[in-house]
Amino acid sequence: MENFRNLNPSQARQMIREGKIKSNTAGMCHGYVQGNLVILPKEHAYDFLLFAQRNPKQCPILEVSDMGSREFMKMAPGSDVSTDIPKYRVYKNGELHGEFDDIKSFWRDDFVSFLIGCSFTFESAMLDEGIEVRHISEGKNVPMYITDIQCEKAGIFEGPTVVSMRPLPYADVVRAVQITSRYPGVHGAPIHMGDPLEIGIGDINNPDFGDSVEIKDGEVPVFWACGVTPQAVAMNVKPEIMITHAPGYMFITDVKNQKLSLL
Amino acid sequence: MENFRNLNPSQARQMIREGKIKSNTAGMCHGYVQGNLVILPKEHAYDFLLFAQRNPKQCPILEVSDMGSREFMKMAPGSDVSTDIPKYRVYKNGELHGEFDDIKSFWRDDFVSFLIGCSFTFESAMLDEGIEVRHISEGKNVPMYITDIQCEKAGIFEGPTVVSMRPLPYADVVRAVQITSRYPGVHGAPIHMGDPLEIGIGDINNPDFGDSVEIKDGEVPVFWACGVTPQAVAMNVKPEIMITHAPGYMFITDVKNQKLSLL
Repeated sequence: MENFRNLNPSQARQMIREGKIKSNTAGMCHGYVQGNLVILPKEHAYDFLLFAQRNPKQCPILEVSDMGSREFMKMAPGSDVSTDIPKYRVYKNGELHGEFDDIKSFWRDDFVSFLIGCSFTFESAMLDEGIEVRHISEGKNVPMYITDIQCEKAGIFEGPTVVSMRPLPYADVVRAVQITSRYPGVHGAPIHMGDPLEIGIGDINNPDFGDSVEIKDGEVPVFWACGVTPQAVAMNVKPEIMITHAPGYMFITDVKNQKLSLL
Repeated sequence: MENFRNLNPSQARQMIREGKIKSNTAGMCHGYVQGNLVILPKEHAYDFLLFAQRNPKQCPILEVSDMGSREFMKMAPGSDVSTDIPKYRVYKNGELHGEFDDIKSFWRDDFVSFLIGCSFTFESAMLDEGIEVRHISEGKNVPMYITDIQCEKAGIFEGPTVVSMRPLPYADVVRAVQITSRYPGVHGAPIHMGDPLEIGIGDINNPDFGDSVEIKDGEVPVFWACGVTPQAVAMNVKPEIMITHAPGYMFITDVKNQKLSLL
């Protein structure tokens, strides 16, 4: 993995495209933004974009491709969204149709691709400032929970907010809020801290997705809106076809994490 | 005007609706967000929303109504966008058709209303911190210029960025950048400072819109992306019909300016 860590993003995308990299992208191209991918037919694109406008913390959109274009022109010139992720998920009518190394055979000219910010970026900023990120220390996936906070409805899209949780000692909370506030493009500031029940989470040790992590004495659970939300919401609609990255297999951009910082 | 300054927003909208307020909204409902209005038929709404996603500094969208709805449900519950602004402009095929006190007779069920952030909000924050805003001191409209900075194209919408300019003593520049960076919903941080020619402005004393203001010795012109951009860009497209507020006659929301601050 050390080589992949120091690859530049266009090299990494090229190697993924050629099937030379098949692993998940965690730790790859250190310092560069990785994003979630959602591909939908144009008929759903307006409602999805409106959903993002109304729920920017749950669905922070980094870039939207032109209809039919396979390229994220701004954040990854020369990219091909149909080949540059190591593993895709194809959903048909809201059910998983399968996982694929590329989606060339599924491609349609009415597809619109959405690149959505991911917490990797703000976690990197937290680690840089010496704030421990528990699930990384424990070598796990971040714990995620379905809350009772409803997203703002937009056309056909509606559903509950999914959050990710990172336990923090109280002494780190202020700095963590400051750091993540600077990154509205990757979920931004926390949306809750403290009692999980207040946002409808019954058992903090039983996340709906990902892994449970330890919350130590003197620590408070801090909750951020999570990029699983738009995928879950889109799936509710049971679109004829929807394509996403497979969890952990992200789209790597040419943009440095720090470039997303507002301040 | 003193009464209007201390009106609450829903009262002000009611009085505008009843024709009891016909003046421009500058200084009205002190402390509350006022926004620009753009109404377009649904057929153009996706491209316009995509334009906003790609050009968030030029076109910071605060809220988008549901198609056919006359209400900004989130920022102004109970509002009616067809009556709650004192003066509207109706454009047909890119030409001004006329100015109207309300637009009830023009309303169509396929209209989508966009509420766009306005610099009133960050100017208020600057004034609160004792930073002089020159055009306000001089009792003028802010000077605005067409630059050679092209917006990111989105579908049918494209065109140059329009900027507003506020001269500042160097000693105030850092604070002004900090303050406006906190308000991405109302154009955010400046996009240029210093030599106007670098962004294609030939004569700083001849703005394309608004009034010229004095730039004193030891001051630097500071440029922010301006909400005239999306209107100008939309007009280029010559949509069959487009409705906007008349300059200075804004839509008043129930949201406090400070609520738009990210930090």
